[in-house]
Amino acid sequence: MQTTVTLRDVARAAKVSVSTASRALAGGGLTSKSTEARLQRIAAELGYRPNTLARGLKTRSTRLVGLVVHNLTNASFRVLAEVVQRRLRAEGYQALLCITADDPEQEAETIETLADQRVDGLIICPTGHNGALLASLDASGTPVTCVVRRDETVELETVLAADPEGAYAGTRHLLELGHRRIGLIVGRQETTSGRERLSGYRRALEEAGIAFDPTLVHAGRYEPETGLAGCRQLLDRDDRPTALFAANHESALGVLRGLAERNIALPDDISLLCYEDVPGFAWQRPAISVVDSGANAMAELAADRLLQRLRPNAAPSAAGEYRIGARLIQRQSVRPVAH
Amino acid sequence: MQTTVTLRDVARAAKVSVSTASRALAGGGLTSKSTEARLQRIAAELGYRPNTLARGLKTRSTRLVGLVVHNLTNASFRVLAEVVQRRLRAEGYQALLCITADDPEQEAETIETLADQRVDGLIICPTGHNGALLASLDASGTPVTCVVRRDETVELETVLAADPEGAYAGTRHLLELGHRRIGLIVGRQETTSGRERLSGYRRALEEAGIAFDPTLVHAGRYEPETGLAGCRQLLDRDDRPTALFAANHESALGVLRGLAERNIALPDDISLLCYEDVPGFAWQRPAISVVDSGANAMAELAADRLLQRLRPNAAPSAAGEYRIGARLIQRQSVRPVAH
Repeated sequence: MQTTVTLRDVARAAKVSVSTASRALAGGGLTSKSTEARLQRIAAELGYRPNTLARGLKTRSTRLVGLVVHNLTNASFRVLAEVVQRRLRAEGYQALLCITADDPEQEAETIETLADQRVDGLIICPTGHNGALLASLDASGTPVTCVVRRDETVELETVLAADPEGAYAGTRHLLELGHRRIGLIVGRQETTSGRERLSGYRRALEEAGIAFDPTLVHAGRYEPETGLAGCRQLLDRDDRPTALFAANHESALGVLRGLAERNIALPDDISLLCYEDVPGFAWQRPAISVVDSGANAMAELAADRLLQRLRPNAAPSAAGEYRIGARLIQRQSVRPVAH
Repeated sequence: MQTTVTLRDVARAAKVSVSTASRALAGGGLTSKSTEARLQRIAAELGYRPNTLARGLKTRSTRLVGLVVHNLTNASFRVLAEVVQRRLRAEGYQALLCITADDPEQEAETIETLADQRVDGLIICPTGHNGALLASLDASGTPVTCVVRRDETVELETVLAADPEGAYAGTRHLLELGHRRIGLIVGRQETTSGRERLSGYRRALEEAGIAFDPTLVHAGRYEPETGLAGCRQLLDRDDRPTALFAANHESALGVLRGLAERNIALPDDISLLCYEDVPGFAWQRPAISVVDSGANAMAELAADRLLQRLRPNAAPSAAGEYRIGARLIQRQSVRPVAH
């Protein structure tokens, strides 16, 4: 199978750095004439499209791309940072990592700084409070791709998880195993992901003819404390749920502690499904069943979209929205309800 | 208590981005005369040392600092990335995140690319194979600070964990509780951390008059698989250890699985101590006792050192080595040996 030749392949063959290769192929005297000629020859030999690239590359390009996330604790952001920087590097770009702590003020400052640095593009998980800044950057020729969250105040190209479908599929899996009282520990309802995961859960219940019971839902930050509080509250009920659905990997840590402190065994006494996968879950005993939200695929697509728009003569953004399908991974923490 | 006024404080007071503030204070017409004057006034009011800064700042500064780690899966690298980018940003620098997968070839390419980008400085966890490249960068005026690992082929400023002392303190803690057969799951002996953690373990045993038994040691990569294999091997012995010391958080995941698959309970049937802390360990039940290797303090000191060397008129590097003390955190997975 033929794979695409990247700028990196050309650089390796020429034994120069990727950025030297990109400058040489861009032409315009950014490197010596002999380097330019040599790189163009090697690129042609390998089948890299040097002419298209050379024609369109802005010589003012900094080869820098901003990557703005809320933190590196959440597994999705970690995966995003690893994948995006790898993909960018293979095309001769460097990622400028910025962390906003989901704080609108820090985000505004970050966007301004990246604009000052004249980044070629930006991949960002927005707080939702600086849409105008992002839109003006995008309109002025610095493409912006949003990921994980949408900024609902503006129209920007956005790559999201399929949260409504993922939560629906997870809830349906539990229903099919006979569970009727399913406790949901979910994100804050001010966030897209919190709302969408709740809506998927409700839809699955409604389809199964089960009335939605808001007292089975505990909403809060994606933190272990939320999972612990929700787990305790749900276990205190007379009609204890037979299954719990934890809305992210951090809250699941708190749920596991809540179950352990009351000696409630997985999956015999209760079933647990978690939204979002982390390596530790497969190693747990019992291994935790999950709805994998597709962080890897989201990161790859965000990189794809931005890189395409960084190409010369790229079509202007259609401000489209992309959704990555979630995937149920059955392990050992869920079982059919006992009768 | 008086805290140091950072460039960020000045920028906030002036309601401009940090990079605008840095350019204004650097003088030389990088911003408008009125911005320059206003920023210098505000900096003086706040007690920021604008003259020192303005005098020495290279106007060719890119305000970019390379941050090179092996991955973002390991907790120490994650903490390093979060802390370093926050500290740099507070001084008007942006972190260029690069991931090498501990691969010398990728590392060489990364260092060249960062040099091409004309970064002001570099914080790197070296593979140990590109010391000459790093040393020449450092010698040419781009300060390099190594962190987590030393490149033993060259003299560069380096911030390390106190692994020999940490492993010694952890082993001693187990000895004091009466454990005599302590299984050690440790890193590969080709790495500094693997060797140093083993040496700390040996020293504690020797001091306690216990002969070193190499069959109690299992060395491998810092991965769950290593912990699982080591755990199984140690549990298969007739004289099973009464305590296990797992050399990092990933291998501990495998140890926990190995214990669970044989229904061996912590801490009643065996004690477990882990080198390196992650948030999940405090949430486990029983909570896992650890030797905290001080990733936060290491990251802060690496940032301190590099920022000091980026100051105007900074003294040339003394190529010093710094060690961050490890700290024992007692939770619930270790108990005195049963008699």
